[in-house]
Amino acid sequence: MEIIKATSTKIKDVDFENLSFGAIFTDHLFECDFINGEWQTPTIKPYAPFLVDPSLKVFHYGQAIFEGMKGYKDENNDIWLFRPEENFKRFNKSAERMAMPEVPEEVYMNGLVELLRIDRDWLQKGKNHSMYIRPFMIGTGTGVIANPSNNYKFMIIMSPVKSYYAGEVKVIIAEHFSRAANGGIGYAKAAGNYAGQFYPTNLANKEGFQQIIWTDDATHTKLEEAGTMNVFFRINNTLITAPVSERILDGVTRKSLLDLAKRNGMDVEIRSVLVDELVEAAKNGSLQEIFGAGTAAVISPISGFSYKDTYYELPKNENPWSLQLKEELTNIQHKVSEDHFGWTFKV
Amino acid sequence: MEIIKATSTKIKDVDFENLSFGAIFTDHLFECDFINGEWQTPTIKPYAPFLVDPSLKVFHYGQAIFEGMKGYKDENNDIWLFRPEENFKRFNKSAERMAMPEVPEEVYMNGLVELLRIDRDWLQKGKNHSMYIRPFMIGTGTGVIANPSNNYKFMIIMSPVKSYYAGEVKVIIAEHFSRAANGGIGYAKAAGNYAGQFYPTNLANKEGFQQIIWTDDATHTKLEEAGTMNVFFRINNTLITAPVSERILDGVTRKSLLDLAKRNGMDVEIRSVLVDELVEAAKNGSLQEIFGAGTAAVISPISGFSYKDTYYELPKNENPWSLQLKEELTNIQHKVSEDHFGWTFKV
Repeated sequence: MEIIKATSTKIKDVDFENLSFGAIFTDHLFECDFINGEWQTPTIKPYAPFLVDPSLKVFHYGQAIFEGMKGYKDENNDIWLFRPEENFKRFNKSAERMAMPEVPEEVYMNGLVELLRIDRDWLQKGKNHSMYIRPFMIGTGTGVIANPSNNYKFMIIMSPVKSYYAGEVKVIIAEHFSRAANGGIGYAKAAGNYAGQFYPTNLANKEGFQQIIWTDDATHTKLEEAGTMNVFFRINNTLITAPVSERILDGVTRKSLLDLAKRNGMDVEIRSVLVDELVEAAKNGSLQEIFGAGTAAVISPISGFSYKDTYYELPKNENPWSLQLKEELTNIQHKVSEDHFGWTFKV
Repeated sequence: MEIIKATSTKIKDVDFENLSFGAIFTDHLFECDFINGEWQTPTIKPYAPFLVDPSLKVFHYGQAIFEGMKGYKDENNDIWLFRPEENFKRFNKSAERMAMPEVPEEVYMNGLVELLRIDRDWLQKGKNHSMYIRPFMIGTGTGVIANPSNNYKFMIIMSPVKSYYAGEVKVIIAEHFSRAANGGIGYAKAAGNYAGQFYPTNLANKEGFQQIIWTDDATHTKLEEAGTMNVFFRINNTLITAPVSERILDGVTRKSLLDLAKRNGMDVEIRSVLVDELVEAAKNGSLQEIFGAGTAAVISPISGFSYKDTYYELPKNENPWSLQLKEELTNIQHKVSEDHFGWTFKV
């Protein structure tokens, strides 16, 4: 690996107690180009703009994938990652679906670890802080013929963060718009999956809802994801989430919460939840909680949902499972409590 | 409009008789940035790479749309566009769906016209030549929070071309993969729609098929598009193509061919064609032709299709409608024959 250190640091300008999510980046980035079928020398270098051709493939045909990960610093100033191999594996699943080359494990993992070590001062101690890590890959070939790029750029950039969501989230259940097709790319962390959600989400925002609960596109009867997160329902003291599929992202937070819930003795079911079931449960009082789960926000509790112009307010819980699970998961991630699962990875 | 002329030209290095599709670009490009809610000064300047931030929104969340258009030069050295207002309108429909700002008509049209005038020498006379024109827009804001970009770049780049497809095309009908969801972005010329097709198309290529005929994702029973083109069937001397929908692009070539066919007295039907109907028609001999239609290739005749591991070879036609319609359409586009429709637009 080639390492080119920045000659100065931007860290002095950062107010770590007032950070917008993903808005500022550390002094360095990791980069590895794939050119003519070969991965080039991995490089860490100062975070800086780079030159691109107007006919860059990613601008025209959208070959772009990413991962979202976090790094944590414990009380001993040791840095930890959470299940990084899961993100690495999913990254290459996304790459395959988008006809992009798989990134070698040593390129991905060594890049991650070295970058965190070099910019370690950007990661603050404690449970309020983490480093949001964004590995991504784009098609960097040129020309406007509609075929896969010859060349690719894999990069890792890092942004110190506090929390993602503020406050309770009201959601609307999708009756018309969809985020994924059967036989499509919904399970991949592909850039295009996100752009397609912005317009429906803007419409929802105008109606007073922060997010959309996505349903299957064919029938709009199955609840699939909440915004850019996996979605969980607590009905009759059972925690339910949809199975992963072609349409549903295999979330690392999702699967970790399932394991945590089981260890806590909570009843867990992995099955489709129908909109009708949810409405019925809201009406008869058996619906206790809904929450989204993902790396950025960890858990985002939902206070109510709208469906067919009726708004269903969820009951207030004294000790909601969402916050209980969030606390336990973040305690493991930040090395505050014991990791019985072997999820944490020392940098 | 600000115009910065290139100090030299690359045209001397171009072999106009041997051009790969969309691989080389003219001396200039058109650019207009959208910053903090306002379109900035439109500019024509030398075609050149530009600087981007690693956290560029388009790299992470895929806000990217485009159009494909062509310019033609007649025997008097006059330059013509084909129904440019249709592409302009569709561009802004794509923009709306991808939560991007609409481009003002005068920015789009004046940019197009001025750029063609400045690089007019790059457009060769005659029916074998045209200028492929690529208007596109990308999200140029920075930061990795998953929301729409604040800033955008609209550009037009141009590439002199000959023809797109060579030879006859064998296709396979999609039984598993899909290009679009109900309530999704299939009707938009969004970059992500294309990246999602590459992997299934690579698999088809390995089986000896150049393209995929896409079916509806819910049932895989309705024939929708062929590769990146609209698809037409000639069955019992009736020309049939699917209605445009949320899943199907409103192709300019598609609608122009429908008008041309009607004027020729051909029977035309706009309705869904079922896979079963196609297989039955192939078996009983009533299927005469299948072809794709789009700006890049104009018409791409299909010689046979595979479905459920059976290959159906189409009959050879002495005077296929595909080539007849292609000839008539390109004659109008190149001002060789009269334009009864008012489709051509003088630059």
